[in-house]
This record gives sequence, C-alpha cells and structure tokens, in this order.
Amino acid sequence: MSDKWVYDFSEGSKDMRELLGGKGANVAEMTRVLGADRVPAGFTITTEACVAYMKADQTEPEGMADEVAEALERLQEHTGKRLGDDDDPLLVSVRSGARESMPGMLDTVLNLGMNDRSVEGLAKATENDRFAWDSYRRFLQMFGNVSRGIDGEAFEQAIADVKADRGVEEDTDLDTDALKALVDRFKALYKEHTDEEFPQDPQEQLRLAIRAVFDSWTGDRAKEYRRINRIPDDWGTAVNVQQMVFGNKGDTSGSGVAFSRDEVTGAPEPSGDFLPNAQGEDVVSGARTPRDIAEMKEWLPDAYEQLMDILKTLEQHYGDMQDTEFTVEEGQLYMLQTRDAKRPAQAAVRFARDAVDEGLLEREQALMTVDAEMLTALLVKTFDPGANYEVIATGVPAAPGGAKGEVVFTARDAIDAAAEGRDVVLVRPDTNANDVGGFHAAKGILTSLGGKASHAALVARGMGVPCVTAASELKINLEDKCIRVGERTIGEGDFIAINGTNGEVTLDDVPLVDPTEDPAFDEILKAFETVLGWADDVRRLGVRTNADTPADARKARELGAEGIGLCRTEHMFMAEDRQPKMRRMIMSGTRDARKEALAELLPLQQEDFEGLFEAMKGLPVTIRLLDPPLHEFLPNLPDLAAHVERARIEVSADLDELETLLETTERISEENPMLGTRGCRLGILYPEIYEMQVHAIMRAAKAMDEPPHPEIMIPLVDYEHEIELMRELVVRIGDEEGLHEIEDYTVGTMIELPRACFVADRIAKFADFFSFGTNDLTQTALGFSRDDVESKFVPVYMERKIIERSPFETIDKPGVGWLVRLAAWVGRESRPDLKLGICGEHGGDPDSIEFFHMAGLDYVSCSPFRVPIARVAAAQAAIIHANDRSWADA
Amino acid sequence: MSDKWVYDFSEGSKDMRELLGGKGANVAEMTRVLGADRVPAGFTITTEACVAYMKADQTEPEGMADEVAEALERLQEHTGKRLGDDDDPLLVSVRSGARESMPGMLDTVLNLGMNDRSVEGLAKATENDRFAWDSYRRFLQMFGNVSRGIDGEAFEQAIADVKADRGVEEDTDLDTDALKALVDRFKALYKEHTDEEFPQDPQEQLRLAIRAVFDSWTGDRAKEYRRINRIPDDWGTAVNVQQMVFGNKGDTSGSGVAFSRDEVTGAPEPSGDFLPNAQGEDVVSGARTPRDIAEMKEWLPDAYEQLMDILKTLEQHYGDMQDTEFTVEEGQLYMLQTRDAKRPAQAAVRFARDAVDEGLLEREQALMTVDAEMLTALLVKTFDPGANYEVIATGVPAAPGGAKGEVVFTARDAIDAAAEGRDVVLVRPDTNANDVGGFHAAKGILTSLGGKASHAALVARGMGVPCVTAASELKINLEDKCIRVGERTIGEGDFIAINGTNGEVTLDDVPLVDPTEDPAFDEILKAFETVLGWADDVRRLGVRTNADTPADARKARELGAEGIGLCRTEHMFMAEDRQPKMRRMIMSGTRDARKEALAELLPLQQEDFEGLFEAMKGLPVTIRLLDPPLHEFLPNLPDLAAHVERARIEVSADLDELETLLETTERISEENPMLGTRGCRLGILYPEIYEMQVHAIMRAAKAMDEPPHPEIMIPLVDYEHEIELMRELVVRIGDEEGLHEIEDYTVGTMIELPRACFVADRIAKFADFFSFGTNDLTQTALGFSRDDVESKFVPVYMERKIIERSPFETIDKPGVGWLVRLAAWVGRESRPDLKLGICGEHGGDPDSIEFFHMAGLDYVSCSPFRVPIARVAAAQAAIIHANDRSWADA
Repeated sequence: MSDKWVYDFSEGSKDMRELLGGKGANVAEMTRVLGADRVPAGFTITTEACVAYMKADQTEPEGMADEVAEALERLQEHTGKRLGDDDDPLLVSVRSGARESMPGMLDTVLNLGMNDRSVEGLAKATENDRFAWDSYRRFLQMFGNVSRGIDGEAFEQAIADVKADRGVEEDTDLDTDALKALVDRFKALYKEHTDEEFPQDPQEQLRLAIRAVFDSWTGDRAKEYRRINRIPDDWGTAVNVQQMVFGNKGDTSGSGVAFSRDEVTGAPEPSGDFLPNAQGEDVVSGARTPRDIAEMKEWLPDAYEQLMDILKTLEQHYGDMQDTEFTVEEGQLYMLQTRDAKRPAQAAVRFARDAVDEGLLEREQALMTVDAEMLTALLVKTFDPGANYEVIATGVPAAPGGAKGEVVFTARDAIDAAAEGRDVVLVRPDTNANDVGGFHAAKGILTSLGGKASHAALVARGMGVPCVTAASELKINLEDKCIRVGERTIGEGDFIAINGTNGEVTLDDVPLVDPTEDPAFDEILKAFETVLGWADDVRRLGVRTNADTPADARKARELGAEGIGLCRTEHMFMAEDRQPKMRRMIMSGTRDARKEALAELLPLQQEDFEGLFEAMKGLPVTIRLLDPPLHEFLPNLPDLAAHVERARIEVSADLDELETLLETTERISEENPMLGTRGCRLGILYPEIYEMQVHAIMRAAKAMDEPPHPEIMIPLVDYEHEIELMRELVVRIGDEEGLHEIEDYTVGTMIELPRACFVADRIAKFADFFSFGTNDLTQTALGFSRDDVESKFVPVYMERKIIERSPFETIDKPGVGWLVRLAAWVGRESRPDLKLGICGEHGGDPDSIEFFHMAGLDYVSCSPFRVPIARVAAAQAAIIHANDRSWADA
Repeated sequence: MSDKWVYDFSEGSKDMRELLGGKGANVAEMTRVLGADRVPAGFTITTEACVAYMKADQTEPEGMADEVAEALERLQEHTGKRLGDDDDPLLVSVRSGARESMPGMLDTVLNLGMNDRSVEGLAKATENDRFAWDSYRRFLQMFGNVSRGIDGEAFEQAIADVKADRGVEEDTDLDTDALKALVDRFKALYKEHTDEEFPQDPQEQLRLAIRAVFDSWTGDRAKEYRRINRIPDDWGTAVNVQQMVFGNKGDTSGSGVAFSRDEVTGAPEPSGDFLPNAQGEDVVSGARTPRDIAEMKEWLPDAYEQLMDILKTLEQHYGDMQDTEFTVEEGQLYMLQTRDAKRPAQAAVRFARDAVDEGLLEREQALMTVDAEMLTALLVKTFDPGANYEVIATGVPAAPGGAKGEVVFTARDAIDAAAEGRDVVLVRPDTNANDVGGFHAAKGILTSLGGKASHAALVARGMGVPCVTAASELKINLEDKCIRVGERTIGEGDFIAINGTNGEVTLDDVPLVDPTEDPAFDEILKAFETVLGWADDVRRLGVRTNADTPADARKARELGAEGIGLCRTEHMFMAEDRQPKMRRMIMSGTRDARKEALAELLPLQQEDFEGLFEAMKGLPVTIRLLDPPLHEFLPNLPDLAAHVERARIEVSADLDELETLLETTERISEENPMLGTRGCRLGILYPEIYEMQVHAIMRAAKAMDEPPHPEIMIPLVDYEHEIELMRELVVRIGDEEGLHEIEDYTVGTMIELPRACFVADRIAKFADFFSFGTNDLTQTALGFSRDDVESKFVPVYMERKIIERSPFETIDKPGVGWLVRLAAWVGRESRPDLKLGICGEHGGDPDSIEFFHMAGLDYVSCSPFRVPIARVAAAQAAIIHANDRSWADA
C-alpha cells in the first residue's frame, strides 16, 4: 500500500484500475492522451484510501484530508474557478468508482459546491436563474440523502407540498420562486434531521460527500450485490472529484455524442448527434431532436475541427473505433467519455479492413477488433432494426436471424406448406430427429422447451435457420394445434414472427432486411472476404464443418470449411423412405432378419456418402457410425401407450401389431437413454449395423473419381477394447472391399465420456484420430442432460451467478476443459501423430475455440453457418497466444 | 533369456511361474516342500524354450534335446524304472502348462512310453491285462491325434467297428482280446495317415509329444482363446513331463482326496475320501462309493500317517487349509496336487480363529485367509446345500440367501400377504422407490430386468432380503399377473423359490437352512466375533452403514456399524401416508402453496430423524437432503397416458384431475432424469424443500437426550457456489433453531459428478466433509445408466472380456478411481481436516474397499448386511498395504 491517497487525473492511466477504480483510470487515460484542457479536470481518491478508512472504523487515513485539500487547490487553479464563488463558481461531481462496475449500487453527489452564494454565481454564468436554483435544490436533496441518510420520501413530500401550494402538477412547472421556497424547505429538513445547519462551506460538503461514498461501499445493497456477483468486500471503491461543465451556458455551449466512424456501416467518416445549449442528458432523452454532427461545423467551426482531430487521435490511441461524449462550455470543448464503439458486423469488418488500408492497424490488430460471434448476421435476414413490434414472449436466441410466416405444428405440415410455397414457422414444445425434414421446409423454428444447445437449436444453427427456443411463456398444445400465451390463443395458420438474434416472438409483421440486398453491402462483402483471408493466414487451427447432407456440406465449403468434422449417419435414417426399414431392422428378433433389413438400407447409405464425398471434393470427411439409442427410431412411448389403450377399447384391427410395437418400444426404452445402449455399444451388440455402414462408406469411396478421405469414427468409447474390436470390424470390411487402412481411410474415435479421457493413452493405440464430442462430455462431466436442464435450472443458475454462461455454449474449463487437455496430452504421449479435433457445438464458440487452440487441437468443426466465426476466432486465438509457450509443447 | 531349457521339478519353486508355467511351478513347489519321493518325479521344459521354438519356425532350440535326454535319464534313475521296459515300465504324462491357465486349449499326452513291449510290463505290474491294453490303445489314440493330427473320428470309427464285430454296446464291454485287436487297427490307422510306422521308441514318442504341445500354443483354438482373454501370444507354454503313478496296482494301491481340516465346518480334523485299488478319476466319478479318509488308517496305516503328516506340513508351508489329491502305488504315497481349500464362510472363520490359537498363523495372516465377500452367508438362511431341485431360470445373484413363498406382483399384495402371515416372493420386471414397502414384507425379490446394482438389488442387499435380478428368461406380465417361462405359466399365489446366492429360480420347495439353528454354529459364531474383533483392531478405515429407517440402523449397529454414512431422505416420502402430501407439494404452482404442503411433512420428517438419532445413540448420522427428480413421486408416464386416454374415451368424472396430473407429469418428466433437475439443483430452485428438511433435522436433534451428530449432506454439487448457497441455507435455519455449525452439526457434500472432482479444492472451502457417491460417479464417468445397462450390455461386455466385473460392483479404477483420488487429494490440499467417506454400493465391496483404503478415505458406508464384510475387507486392505507409503501422504 502506498502513502499517496490522491491522484490528479493527469497522473493516472488506464493501467491503474485497481488503485483508481474503473472510472478514475479511464478519465486519467483520456486526460493523458488529450491533455488536461480537454477533459474536465479533477482527482481520484484511491481504493486504498477506502480500504484504510474501512479498516480504521470509518476514519480517513492520515494525510488524506491534506492531499484532498491540495488537489482541490490545484483543481481551482487549473480551472480558474473556485468552489462557492459568487461569480462563476466551480462545481464538482463526487462519484464512486470501483475496480468492477457496480451500477447504481454506490453513491454519487452532483453539483457539489452549491450554496447560498454560488447559486447566484451559477445563475449569472448560465444566464438561467431557474437552472441555478433547480441545481441547488437538487444538490440539497442528493447531499442530504446521500451524506446524511435523510429519507428521500421527506424531500418528495416537501416537493409535493410546494406543488400543492402553487397549484401545479409537474416538477417542471415550478418556477424560480417556487424553487427558492423549496431550497428553504430542504435546508429546514436538513436541520430537522441532523440537528445541524446545512454546511455552506464547500470544503465541508466535500469531506462529507467523500465519506458518504466510502460508506456506501459497506451499505447493505452494495454488500448484497457483491455477494451475488462475487466481488470481494475488501476491494473498496475509489472516489472521483471532477469539475462539472455545462453545455447549457448559452449559444456557444452544447453537448453531443460522436463516433470516429459511421457506427452502422463502418464507413470512414465520423458520425454522431449534438444539441446546442443543452446538457448531455438532453441529447439522449429524445425531448429535443438532436442535429447531425456534420452541422456542428457551421455552428462552432473551431470546436468541430478540434473534435474531428480528437476523434482521430483517440482512434489512433486506442486502435479502435471510438464512441465519445462531449460538452462545449462557452466555446471550450470538453471530452467526457470515450470507449470502443459497439458496432454491427458490417461495420466491424469494414473498419477492420479500412484500418489496415489506412495504416492505422496491423492485420492482426485489426482482426482483434472483430467480434467473431456476430458474423453470422452477415449471412441471414434480420428484423429491421427500426421496426416497432409487440413482444409476446422471449426465449433463448438459439440461431440468429429473423423469420416469419404461418404457424405449423408438425414437420409434415411444414413440408406440405413449403411445397405450396407458403412461408411457415415450425412451432413445437421441443423437437427430435423426426422433425428434421421440417427444419428445411420452415423459415424459422420456435420451441417452448430446450435451450441454446437443445436439438432444435443445434440443427437450426447448423442450417442457418433462425430459431428461438425455451420461450416458456408459450403453452403449446399439439393435440389442439394451438398456442396459449397469457390471454391469447394462436392457432395453426396464424401469423407469427421470431427474432433468433435476441429471442423475441411477436405476432406483428415485422419487416425483414436482407443485408445482401443493400447496395452498400458489396463493399462490406469485399471487406468480409479480406478479413477472412487474413484470418486464414494467421490461424493454426483447422476449421471443418458438421454436415449430414450434401447441401450442408456445399454451403460449408462456400463459407470456407476445410472438411467435414462430423457426419451424423443417424440423420440419414430419419428420412421418410428409410424409417420403416430402420424400424423393421429394430423389430427383428434375429441377427439374420436384421441383416436382411439392413441390406435394403445399404445402397441408400452408399448414396448418402457418395453425395457427401462429391460435395467435399477430396477433403477429409469424418463419418460417425450409428450413435443414438434405437428407440429414437420408434414412437414416443406415452403417445404409443395412449394409442394402444384406445385400440384396445375400440378393439382395432391393428391391435396385435400395435401391441407388438408397444412391447418392443417398452423393452428398448431406457430410463436415461443418454447413458444407455448407444454408440459403440450398439456396434458391439449388433455388429451387423456397423458392418452395413462401413460397407456403404467403402463402396461410396470406391465409386468416386477423386479419392475421398473418409475418417471412420467410433462413438462413445469408454474402454480401449471397444475401439480395438470396432477397428477390427472396420478393417475386416475394408479388406473385403479391397481398401487399406491409413492409405484409403482412417479409424478414430469420439472422445465424449470422462473415462475415455483418463485412458486416452490406451485408446490412442487403436485410434488414428480423436474428435472431442464436447456436448456429451459436458453432459456426463457435469451431470447435465442438455435437453432437460437448458430450460429448467440453467437460467436460474445464470441469474444466481452460479454459472456465467450455459456450459453447452462455452466450454466449462475446470471440468470439461480439464478432460479435453488430459486426453489430448496422454493421447499424444501414446501416439505423437494422433490427429485431434472437436465436433461439439463448442467448435463454433469463440471463447471455446481459444481454449481449443491452447489445448493444442488440430481443428474445430462447427455448423456450416458458424464456419466464418470459427475462422476469425481461431485467428484471434493464435494472435492472443502468439507468444505463449504452448501447453502441448510443455 | 537363459540357456537352460529344462528344469527338474526339484529345481523349481512357486515363484518361477513365468518360466515354468503355473503347473510346473506348483509341482516344483510341492516337490521342494515334501521331498522328491513324495511327488511323482519329472521335469519342465520352459516357456522360453517354447518361445524360441516358435521364433525359429518350429525348431527346437539348440541344446534342448540334450537337456531333455539328460532329464529323462535322471528321471529313470530316480524312479528305478525305464521307458519302454517290459517289466515295470516307466510311463510319463506330457502336459502343457502356461503362465495363465487356458483350460482345454492346449494338448496333453498321457501314458507315454507305451509300446508293444511295455504293455506287457504294465500288465504284469498291475496284474491287469485289460487295464494295460486299454492304456495302450488310449495312448495310441491320444498320441496319433495330438502329435500327428489324425482325426479323432477315424479312431472312433475303428472302435465302433470292433464293437460291431464283437457284438457289444459299450467301450467297457470290450475285453482284452478286443482291445488288442483295436491296438492293431490303431497302428494301421497311424500308418495310413502318416505313411510312417507308429514309433515304438519312447524317446521318439517324447520328442513328438513335446513338439505337439508347443504347436498347440499356436493352434487356432488357443489363439482365439487368448484373443478373447487377452493373453499375450508371446508368452508360450511350458511342457511338463511327469512319471505316471497307478493307484490301481492292487491292494496296496489306491487314490484319494484329503483336506487338512473339515472343509465344511472348519473343525481341526483332516477330512476326505479314498478308494483302494483305484485311480484318481474313480474317486470323483461316483462309479464306486468312496470311503472316509479315517478308514484308511486301518488299511494302510503307514501311508495314512504319512498323509496326516504331509497335510500338516502343507498347511504350515502354505499357511492355509489345503485341499490335496494323492495316490498310493504299492504302498508308496504320492502327492499329486495341493491347493488352498475353497471353503464356506463358517469354515473360513473357524479356521482363521483356530489357526491363531494353534500358533499356525498370526492374526493378520489369519484375517487374510477369509474371503470377506462370503460372510453374509452367516447371516441369512440358504438353500440346503444337499437339496435337488429343477432350475427354471438363472439370473444375477443380487443379494445372498434363499427365499420361498407365493408369487405376488405388487408391493401392496406383498404387504397384505405379510399381514396375513403368508410368505411371499415379490416378482416384478424391475422395481422403483414405490415398491420399497413391499421389500420389507416379502421373503425374497425376483426381477427379470436390472442387475447386481439395480434398484431391487441395492435395496434388497441393504435389507438382507434374498434377491435375484435379471432373470431374463422370465416374461413377467403385470397386467395378467403371470410369469411365462418356456412352456410354463406361473400365476399369482403359485409357489416359487429363489437362491440369491447363485441366482437360481425354482418351483420346487427347497428346504432352507438357517445356520444359526445348527448347534455347531455356536462355535462358529464365537469364531466370527473373534475374527471381526481382530479386523477392528487392524483396520484404519471406519465402517458406517447406509440406512433410512431405525430398523436398518439398529441392525447395522448390531453388525458393528460406527455411524450412518448415508440416510436417503427421499425414501421417507415414499410411505403411503406421505406420498399424497409430497404430490400435493409438487403439484403446487406457487412457493406459498408448496410451503403449506411441506409444513405438513415437517413433523413427519422430524419423527423420522428422531428415530434414526435414537437408534444410533450419538454416533454420526449423515443425512442427505432430497436428491431424486420430483417426477419419481408422480405416476409412470406411459401408464398415466394410457389411463387418461381411457378416461377421455369413457368421459370419466375425474378426467380434469387426471389431465392436470398428466400435464404436470409431462412437464416435470425428463429425458435423462439422472442428469436432470435433482440434488442440490432442487434445493436451489425450491429452497423451501431443503428448509423444511433442515428444520426437521435440527428439531429432531434438539429433542434428543443424548446429542446426536447430524452431518447434513448436499447432493449433486458441481459448482462451489452451489454448496456455498446451500451451506448458507443450512446455517440460516440452524441459527433460527439455535444450533451452531461444527459444534452441533456439520455440512458437507456428496461428490458424485466428475466436475466436482476437478474443483474439489474449491468445494472443500464450504464443506466439512465429502462423501463419494460412487454409484452416480460411475454412471457419469462411464456414461452408464445403472438401471439400463446392467441387464443389457454389461453381460455382453463381460462375455467379450471388455470388462471383468460390473463397474457398479467393483469400482472402475482408471476412471472413477482416478476421480476419487483426485478429489480426495485436492480437497485435502484445500482443507486438511476434510473428512472423507464413500457411500456408494462400492462401500461394501472388498476390492473397492482396498482401493478406498489406499485413496486415504476415512470411512466406507455400506448396506447393514455388508458391514461385517466391510470390517474384514478394511482390515485386509490395511494388512496388504501396511508397508506402503500412503498415496495420500506422498
């Protein structure tokens, strides 16, 4: 701990956040860059002073008072104004500023320095009596409440009394006289509650205000906030004392906001709004219509030129687009705030490209300014940002983009509607593999259950279909084909629109905008291509796609995928012409009968693979053998039970058949199918299934002109002997088909169970590659059933700060991440040339991609529409960790 | 690799298993202990010779032939007999002997040395022409088949021809002449197939036989066996050449088996059977009735005395009860085999106690002779070992003991029958928490699904109720209340008996024996108590019990439990008077309504805890707050769906109510409840439930005279913040009730998710203890749903040697064990006084207990009836690892 308790803004910098708090460090940095005249001056009392104060039972540390007095003196000298002056008084704000923002939790006092004399000075300086007296009464109110704990109600009551006296309704109707009367009442209130006179001495005001801010750190609200947000109690808060400037001091004053470039398109011209003779809140409140920043040039040409220079300076200093607030006080331009500008995807790629062209940034720096997560927006239609609409429900934004159309409740109806050219939104409580056909046909998907990683979300995201899940306000009744939400009922064919970017659902016909239809978009697309090209140069991670169909595969290749990291073969059995065959196979009681049923599926599977190989033109294609439990191909059990009950009562002709189906479904159904008879367990129990699939892969490979690179993946391995047996099976079929391991195909495994990570060295002896199935690894390592928990306790857990994000969105590093690193490590120890990839949903999540880069993986695989995100995120990971010694090398 | 290829038996020992194979090492050890005259002499050709032979393309290594010739010469000198002698010829056996036993896979040749001359010598020596010629023809057959690959069919055909010639039916009807004719035919067969004469030279016979044994190592059958059993191909087999001795050489010859003590009771007198003038196979074949070993004293007093001495010597040498085979050849006693005797529990404890009393063993050595797993047999009735019965089905022996009675299909029926004093066996496809009432009422439990760790198995074992699970031959139809098995149908009220010790099911009224009714059992019980007392002195691990009722708790204390390691509070809500209240709570839409329903459960819970505290008399009681997903308290969904469908068709009066129930059940049901909304997730979503339970615990504690030690356990923690929040809840209620943490109660967590193990250091900051829930940890780490997989692929996995035992029976060390060790380690790093226990089913499994000892845990907790097992197993672990440096100290 240092002995210095107070820092002038000109002494600090953005690196002193712990000592000066976030606000203090930021204003100091801006002062450093722009000079002391451009930023309202002031000083910061350190967090250490607060800590010392708390430790000493609410006593200021020795020397602090003197340092504050000296800093105040310097402030008065610098501004040429004095606190309490009756001509043009110095007023200051006294604000808290903790290391982490705690919005609204700590106290603030504005207009400090007001007293019976300076109120007159302010009136003179602003030529606005009412403003001066209103400021005074506001200061009295805030000061009394904050520093002496006088109940806000008492002040409100006094205001109400005066309004009643004067017969007016609104605060704004109180004239200067009324405000003067209120000032008297407030002073009386202060006396009454504190037994002291309101301190006219601004030094005394300042001392009390600083104590009040310190004290607010240990207030109940703040403590509760810190507990919930897990901010340590012993950090303390800094206190910032800053000159107040006024944009409402007449025609040469004003306030505004300015961006260093167009914040919507990214075009290289500053943009923004300003209002003459106004304070900052007037610009954003909407009470007056602000004017375009360009018009400021005529009104205050000097200040305008200065502002333009400052924007350039700030952009260069921070190396990014800036979003600023400023005030002009009697011709003098003050910068109040600057921060990196939030921007939509098009502005992000445009800025990145231009910044390099302009020599502002190096390519790698420019790449770091892009928020990879947002890039999908460049590929889909979205709600018109200017549209107004009534939100009837909000769910989880599961796949970005806007969609609208008639409500349908079944995949079948969606397909029929699409055939008739109608736009539909498929609405279901949740979805399963049977619904996938409907995903292609629908414009959007809406579910009341699930979450960001539920089946609907995964599939929709992979297809680029907008999707909202977990819209739990919607009560969806499939039987009656209606949705109830509050008092409303929405039926089949009714209009609905969903915004997959923010999770909103509306019944209004919101206009959709297609970014590619915008003529300006040509420039954006060029910039996008340029930035992606740089990303490819920089990244070490490969980027593949998860794709089950040739259409998905082609789309992904267009977007830059370097192979297929996961083809889920089960999706191929869900098609309408195949499901009966699949079901017949499952219902077979003997191996021979199963083989017969499988023989019919073989040529169809072969076609599937030929389509994929064709689409990928010799790039690697990882094919996972059948993974899901077989009952996924059978009807839903409760529905079937009800159906059979009805058939029994009605003595239906097909009762026998139905009862057999029910019996099989009951026998095959499992308590916890996620942990049941699936993955390679099926391959071991029913080798004929995997044999058929491997034959289909081999034959498809032989049918290609350009030899493909099939990578055959065995799912759900726990024990090395499982992969050993399954590898034997594959190689045996390979021999039969005349193809050779390594040369013509490779065999690997999905690592998706914790046990597999512990014995990865043994498993690697039989695997040419590992692909981490982080979805299932998350389910097992955390004991979270994805479909069950996303809509149930995950939202509550986020609210209570138990978790920050769903572990299905961003990889859980301490648990799942640990397992991935362990398996990567011991797997490579055992087999140094082991190829490592990841094909869970995390493969498209930027934070997770950074982790996979660090873990030394070779590639990530993600949904087609997330391929650009992954390319950029992989580049960013490589840039951030360029100088790290890789953990994998260690 | 050494240069010595051949070892005489007198040169080897039991430690040379790798070089001499199992059989060679054992016979050498016996020779060493008893001297060269007591064991038929011989020599072993090493496994290394076999390896060299294989490497050199079926060529004997240099020097081997000479060493064999020398060894044979020594053998002939030692025995005073010569191969091929026409007086009293030496005959030898040539047997394989691999490092691991491969029963039936490798070749053996007996009676080697037979030829046209020595057959006469053997006839003379045994005064038995027929025996000599039969031995000759058997040798020809075996030698021709084994060493020259002549098809066995050809020999069988020749036998059939001779029988037809002579007009006899059986092999045994062939007289000496017929056998002589057969010898001629066999020699002709040999010539025909090999183009060579049958070798009359015994040296040549020996050379060919040794090659044949070597070659059998690389035969297809053996290779397949090794692949399945994962025995390395490059181990090779040894070859043992041993003098054959004959117990059928007249009145001073004979064969027998002898135990060093009574193998059934453990009483300290040798027991066994013998037959004069007979070979070993005659004793065990049952063709002649053997005589008690005591009678041998009169017949061959010298040999008898020698045998008694030898039994003592062997017992002392091996430090355990011995099970031996012997032959007397013309008055000379030969010991053929000795091994540690298999014995039932009563003999095991009796021997252990007596061996110490006699000074044969130290206490710790004696403890090591007891098979802990078997001890439960001392506590339950069993099928009479002598009973004959027809087995109609065999399942998994899930809880030991025999039970019989009328078949009932529901818990309700079991309870009603018990009230009427009828004995019943509860038969169901599987069971769930709703059936627990019926477990108490039934004599035994039989299920067609599940496995050794299914719900039925766990609960039955905990209660000491015999149980057979996974009897998959039984088709149980609950609707028609019948069991179909093959052609039979068994209905309600029909008689059934089950043997939970070996998994057999029968319809016969098998007598049950209660060991405690045996007057001799008094002695056994005393020995049992003594042995358990020694175990308690030696073990470091504490032993607690899993118990949910005062009755279980009392039983466990009687059996030595030192506390309750797991009380599952949910079982308390399954009782008939409580389930409606629980259901009302779940159906409540608001927190207040839930609180109201819970208020009714509070006094009942308090009573539950008072009962437990009372039973445990101040010993620690670990109480787990509600863990299972709430839908476990609601009806089965498919059944309910069918029920509602019926109600709809019939327009039942209670349709509305049923539909509401269906809606709630559907909403609450989960795809994978194991990974769903349960454990502390419930506590966070519905804190009022845990609040009620904690109030009940605290109030019960206050109501006790003797202060109890409640340990409140939070289940299913993943994140440190979960336990932090739940600890806060407990302490808050504690404050309300005026009780203090640590002093009056402690708070800990169940470690049952992989993630929790990785962050155990953080979790430990809020936990006074960890209890490993290894059942759920196995389910998640391996992705094995216990109820689903035990009956489905686990048996197939065992058959295919992917796993040796169910991971729910014995802890999976590489996966689950790793997690336990990690969590124990980092948990203690963070909190050195952290108490560590384990309360999964593994807590009662001896192998797992050894692991937990090594992992540094403080205690194991198991079902009441397994407490004695755990006490002994814990002692054995401490003995085995007495000199290990503990991993936890490292």
